[in-house]
Amino acid sequence: MIIRIEKNSSRPFYKQIMDGINMMIDQGALPPGSPLPSSRRLAKTLGVNRFTVTRAYEEMEALGFLQSRPGSYTRVRKKREGIPVSSRVRSLISWEKISSPEARNIYKTFLRFSPENPPLPLDQDVINISQLNLDPRLYPLNNFRKCVLSVLRQPENNILDYGCQQGNLLLRRAIAQRLQTHGINTSEDEILITNGAQQALDLVARLLSGQGTKIAVESPTYSIALPLFSFSGARLINIPFTDKGMDLGRLKHVLQREKVGFVYTIPNFHNPTGITTSPRHREDLYAVCAEYYAPLVEDGFEEDMKYFGKVPLPIKSIDSAGLVLYLGTFSKALFPGLRIGWIAADRECIGRLTAIKRFSDLSSSSFTQAVLYKFLEKGYYEKHLRRLHRIFRRRMHLALETMERYFPACIEWTHPAGGYTIWVKMPSALDEKELYTLMSRHKVVVSPGGYYFTQKIRSPYFRLSIAKTDEKEIEEGIKRAGRALMKQFERKHP
Amino acid sequence: MIIRIEKNSSRPFYKQIMDGINMMIDQGALPPGSPLPSSRRLAKTLGVNRFTVTRAYEEMEALGFLQSRPGSYTRVRKKREGIPVSSRVRSLISWEKISSPEARNIYKTFLRFSPENPPLPLDQDVINISQLNLDPRLYPLNNFRKCVLSVLRQPENNILDYGCQQGNLLLRRAIAQRLQTHGINTSEDEILITNGAQQALDLVARLLSGQGTKIAVESPTYSIALPLFSFSGARLINIPFTDKGMDLGRLKHVLQREKVGFVYTIPNFHNPTGITTSPRHREDLYAVCAEYYAPLVEDGFEEDMKYFGKVPLPIKSIDSAGLVLYLGTFSKALFPGLRIGWIAADRECIGRLTAIKRFSDLSSSSFTQAVLYKFLEKGYYEKHLRRLHRIFRRRMHLALETMERYFPACIEWTHPAGGYTIWVKMPSALDEKELYTLMSRHKVVVSPGGYYFTQKIRSPYFRLSIAKTDEKEIEEGIKRAGRALMKQFERKHP
Repeated sequence: MIIRIEKNSSRPFYKQIMDGINMMIDQGALPPGSPLPSSRRLAKTLGVNRFTVTRAYEEMEALGFLQSRPGSYTRVRKKREGIPVSSRVRSLISWEKISSPEARNIYKTFLRFSPENPPLPLDQDVINISQLNLDPRLYPLNNFRKCVLSVLRQPENNILDYGCQQGNLLLRRAIAQRLQTHGINTSEDEILITNGAQQALDLVARLLSGQGTKIAVESPTYSIALPLFSFSGARLINIPFTDKGMDLGRLKHVLQREKVGFVYTIPNFHNPTGITTSPRHREDLYAVCAEYYAPLVEDGFEEDMKYFGKVPLPIKSIDSAGLVLYLGTFSKALFPGLRIGWIAADRECIGRLTAIKRFSDLSSSSFTQAVLYKFLEKGYYEKHLRRLHRIFRRRMHLALETMERYFPACIEWTHPAGGYTIWVKMPSALDEKELYTLMSRHKVVVSPGGYYFTQKIRSPYFRLSIAKTDEKEIEEGIKRAGRALMKQFERKHP
Repeated sequence: MIIRIEKNSSRPFYKQIMDGINMMIDQGALPPGSPLPSSRRLAKTLGVNRFTVTRAYEEMEALGFLQSRPGSYTRVRKKREGIPVSSRVRSLISWEKISSPEARNIYKTFLRFSPENPPLPLDQDVINISQLNLDPRLYPLNNFRKCVLSVLRQPENNILDYGCQQGNLLLRRAIAQRLQTHGINTSEDEILITNGAQQALDLVARLLSGQGTKIAVESPTYSIALPLFSFSGARLINIPFTDKGMDLGRLKHVLQREKVGFVYTIPNFHNPTGITTSPRHREDLYAVCAEYYAPLVEDGFEEDMKYFGKVPLPIKSIDSAGLVLYLGTFSKALFPGLRIGWIAADRECIGRLTAIKRFSDLSSSSFTQAVLYKFLEKGYYEKHLRRLHRIFRRRMHLALETMERYFPACIEWTHPAGGYTIWVKMPSALDEKELYTLMSRHKVVVSPGGYYFTQKIRSPYFRLSIAKTDEKEIEEGIKRAGRALMKQFERKHP
């Protein structure tokens, strides 16, 4: 019996032996019942350790391909039902039919579009200025590595055990201290660690909404929050988001006649528009919510990206009535892949959110939390932010200048005070596909405005992001977008 | 210094001490800089363990209220910037009132009991044979460290970016291959990575249940699944779990008249009973579910802990109709703190579960998934399992022998074919507190049987676990439990 063993392969020898025997069974070279060589003999033939062969035989026996009896050769078992179950059958269950209505809807949304990932042309020459992930080339990997090693050297061996359900105490304390620098007076008891800000949104929706309740959202807003909120069974009420922020007259009007579970706002570098609201607007928004006892969910996802200097303090900083649930994350300025965010809120509210988290996933990873704490403690995060600020100040300046030079006169856009996104208005609306086709003809990808409204309509808007592209790419990407817009709109508006 | 300690309060002594010191600081009785008594002296004054005082001091120092220097008294630190907002205000919002009914219930459950963590006596001499976490002393930390370093050395810099929403492709493929060794024919397309098996349960409940649906559960069953399932709005239907497994007559009766969202079963080393069902029972259970088109959720949380040799193949291995959702995890035989589990199911079902996961937390940590993949690829997991199997074979034998020797004749228990838990039946029922009091008098902690039923009733059962204790501790813990049982039941049943 000849089996080809690749000595340089990363696949263990015993698995290569299994592969070989499997192939021979499949091809009929080893029919059912045929004996295999003794492990000693095969080992000698193949030039491997006998134990390696034994292991391959044992594994294949466990899998049901071989059978052995004491004092006899190992033999090929009667052939198994060939093909994997998966490719043979369609499920007996109609998953569509037995899903809850909310589960049906979220699946439909999921299939229809994946907002942060528009279909990319295969061509590698395309520049993608749609994505809101930090440029991985800016990851502080060396310092991260040091922190991992330091955590793994710690004498306590429980860093890989289940962690505290509310989150690592030291990390919560460090976050509370950082929040102080943003004017938020809080303590570790009032913080819950979550798997990114997305889980924070999920927990909040699961606590405060449900069948028949309502959630007031800015329109446009963070696209991935919308299907999530609907999934809780709540109905979304759109409050127009103007260049000053949420339309407070409209919000007040709504709160007067409807009971809403909560109001959702993004006051800094609003996603998608990039707009930052004024201190006055924040106070007014807070006052409206307080008047109607409406919890206010403040999404501070880019709080740390204030690279043009001071922006107004978070609404949470004036929350004397304990009605703001403040969400934060390390995914936008550090590593998304750690999946660490948090909620800072009234102590009892945090307790209730912790209960939901405890039963829905026990706790967040104790390991990544320990490493992140180390990263904060050593001052690496602040150092990293200083570097990011220098880089993104330049990137944002460059983006705005390039738009000024290359976008046709009929196009308008926002001038963000930080963060990553710019919101662009065209003179007339395009649907997602039209915009995509237009842009991809010029080898650039932007994020269609329609994604950020509850009604997926034709929209005159699109979102640019400078998060993942360097200066050269930003300049070239914007030039291309400019050319595309020129082609589309100069004819119509000469 | 006089602090009032309520010996009967549920608030731990060290927290009562902290409360007392805090009050004195607030009221000015302990001005900044004033020294506190030594822990030895205060312990004596209050009649508590010295360790209790030390813990209070340490916590208060960490919180910034006290400071200590080697060779000197602990002192009150210069007063902090007023008081954190948190302790000043009570929220304007009544969180209880605005929570959804399900959120109210889960919080009540959360407050009432924390099943895996009964209140531990402060005394360090107590042996806890209740916990189902793997002994951290058995963590393969060296090999884990190698994998982390290897991942951080990889040239691609995207290991800390958002990952694939369905989970790392290589990890899914490796899991699919491992499932083959358990007789499950599946592929990476039919697997979704989750944050531990707990999130898998959550996603399944969110997909398949909701207001007014029903879920059939074994009684008793995994305690933390119960409030989670109820949280989805479903009603739980208890199917008695006998020494053969779920009562199939009863299940059939239920499925005949009720539409159930899914049936939940733990066929191997059932939690809490430790019972493993026979191949015949598995086939029959599958046939009943198939007859009524009921999805079957098979929790294989300890599939890898077959240390006494062969146990029957998972039900998923005979799932020709695509109705089994198989849940697995790396938390029980490896590291809980990585939070990595998975669901293997019909491809379309996986798509729908992925949609819910995508919107509820975007994806699992790409970093921990990459490290775990490396750990599997290098063969470290199989090696680690072989070691665990040797150790737990010994531990389980020892546990059963020790029970044989030290438990009174009126006590009965199961004889598990693997896994960690043993289910003990006493001649009469005790409530949680009675059992806890009885056992803690003998310095041992077990897990009350009542936790594992939907009705938290007095129960004649308790659960032992050998997961976190070494042989010495198992022997001593069981001896103590035996003494406690002797004391309680020998009088009644002489």
